[in-house]
Amino acid sequence: MTHSQRRDRLAAKLAADGLDAILISDLVNVRYLSGFSGSNAALLVFAGDTPDVLATDSRYRTQAAQQAPDLETVIERACGRHLVGRAVADGARRIGFESHVVTVDGFDVLAREVDDQPAAELVRTSGRVEALREIKDAGELALLRLACEAADAALSVLVSSDGLRPGRTEKEVGRQLEALMLEHGADGPSFETIVATGANSAIPHHRPADAVLAAGDFVKIDFGALVGGYHSDMTRTFVLGTAADWQREIYQLVAAAQRAGREALDVGAELRDVDGAARQVIVDAGYGEFFGHGLGHGVGLQIHEAPGINSAAAGTLLAGSVVTVEPGVYLPDRGGVRIEDTLVVGDRSELLTRFPKELAVLT
Amino acid sequence: MTHSQRRDRLAAKLAADGLDAILISDLVNVRYLSGFSGSNAALLVFAGDTPDVLATDSRYRTQAAQQAPDLETVIERACGRHLVGRAVADGARRIGFESHVVTVDGFDVLAREVDDQPAAELVRTSGRVEALREIKDAGELALLRLACEAADAALSVLVSSDGLRPGRTEKEVGRQLEALMLEHGADGPSFETIVATGANSAIPHHRPADAVLAAGDFVKIDFGALVGGYHSDMTRTFVLGTAADWQREIYQLVAAAQRAGREALDVGAELRDVDGAARQVIVDAGYGEFFGHGLGHGVGLQIHEAPGINSAAAGTLLAGSVVTVEPGVYLPDRGGVRIEDTLVVGDRSELLTRFPKELAVLT
Repeated sequence: MTHSQRRDRLAAKLAADGLDAILISDLVNVRYLSGFSGSNAALLVFAGDTPDVLATDSRYRTQAAQQAPDLETVIERACGRHLVGRAVADGARRIGFESHVVTVDGFDVLAREVDDQPAAELVRTSGRVEALREIKDAGELALLRLACEAADAALSVLVSSDGLRPGRTEKEVGRQLEALMLEHGADGPSFETIVATGANSAIPHHRPADAVLAAGDFVKIDFGALVGGYHSDMTRTFVLGTAADWQREIYQLVAAAQRAGREALDVGAELRDVDGAARQVIVDAGYGEFFGHGLGHGVGLQIHEAPGINSAAAGTLLAGSVVTVEPGVYLPDRGGVRIEDTLVVGDRSELLTRFPKELAVLT
Repeated sequence: MTHSQRRDRLAAKLAADGLDAILISDLVNVRYLSGFSGSNAALLVFAGDTPDVLATDSRYRTQAAQQAPDLETVIERACGRHLVGRAVADGARRIGFESHVVTVDGFDVLAREVDDQPAAELVRTSGRVEALREIKDAGELALLRLACEAADAALSVLVSSDGLRPGRTEKEVGRQLEALMLEHGADGPSFETIVATGANSAIPHHRPADAVLAAGDFVKIDFGALVGGYHSDMTRTFVLGTAADWQREIYQLVAAAQRAGREALDVGAELRDVDGAARQVIVDAGYGEFFGHGLGHGVGLQIHEAPGINSAAAGTLLAGSVVTVEPGVYLPDRGGVRIEDTLVVGDRSELLTRFPKELAVLT
């Protein structure tokens, strides 16, 4: 789908809601709708035939021309304010803005542009573009596949080259994994790589430190690759040397919960039921209190995006969304296991992260 | 300075402004005041003796205990809302919030906590913690020095090992430079490394692509290292092979402007005058239209923070602030030069990025 087609889909929704135009302030949404990826920008999308307008500052003049050649681009540092003024000048009366993105102070700046325009008003909207982004198009799926493949390949090389061995630090492992992703086509890591060894593995979001991998440790690795702006997300947990009984027990438990979660990924399923399917396995085994986060989340231009899959989520799974399934059990001061895949939701879910999930005891 | 001392400084300002407490929602400000670096958090700071409270979600239970051991930590997903309720319960009446950070929708959520509390009100505040952050303390300066040293060392190795040679791609150079920074103590790059060769060097913020370095090219490299959360920022521009007359001309011009900017970094100087000192050199040479961005910006926990040094800036330079000086001249479709240093403002400014700035013609 071209960026112009994405804007057309948004425009159709605007018209249905009685909006004449919408100011897009969220930079990820701007990128999704225009292709432009600079750090200061806003986009004005009209419901009708008036051509849409991109605004950015002078640093990005050339980049905007390259990335969004089909859009008129205005060079103007105060992007949002300028575009609201432009919407008014072009006759828009009901002008939507992203009330989940624009700050309280930022709203004042926008409001000044309509203060003396009795016919124009700013209308709160929230999550419109995020809802469009939830269903990935073919071009997005291609990039997500590449991102997951880069992560799979990097982890395979890391493990097969004995990269997870006693004596290395978490940081060393993390850096090698990130370098391997670059070698396999990634533009970079999709977030700060988590390598957590021993008791650190009980920390859901541990930052790699100088802790040294040791025999008998769980080593939990949560990482992903970034390709063309799209993120992959995968977690695997290994045991170094011999696995103790308690390690086998919680590993198999999390693996069973993760399988249950993947099998519950049906189009139309209630999000909270998907979370529940995996969570129940852990609760039934008596470990419910040690799984304190949600089951998963959407992935795309952001590492966390719609839909959230957790016990408080409203809504259902949509065909073409890309989500993670990542239950975990974390025993404080002992160790923890998380197993996470990224999948495309469909009549039959497609697994994008294919590195094996059997308990790997590295000796 | 300890995190607790930083909170005391903020509390003193709150008391002076008649606020009983302030909700800190900006994650960088939360980190500055508490040490906690998770991705979901808020902090409640009281003007009086009531102990401050940190809120985050269950993923970060252990990390919060490690990074902010002196603070009470509440595990609660809706951090901001919870802390406003807590402030009210603890008797705060005038409760500040960060109106430059909290979104229009987010404000509604906070406001519900005081709706039925006639004695309590939410008060807009903007940039209070950012103003404290502008003056770096000794611990911050130590990390900034390390970050700048890592960048200096990496660029030195890159150049001396013939890393900037015709035939390599921008991406290859960028990745090697990032790997070298890691080897020299960086936790990562401080932003997406810019390597721009040939005509791409005329794009102020070019993203590295598959363009190949060629003899006669300008190669502009804008990059930095991240150490302990602190960012360095440096730009150098090289010529591959023989420098043409026009290249020497704009290089020397930008170098002269950069020197003028550094020499204008006096404590108490008007920010716009600092910008003007460098800009005038470029304008006088007839290239003013090709220098479209501001002269510099503060650097610290963020790559761009207060103060902004540009023609529209209000305010003066403070002793102990850390800023960049980075004029550029960009000739569309031909090439461009930017030279950028990071410096500590003081009675005598301290240069943190020490890689040489003489025109280097790499043969």
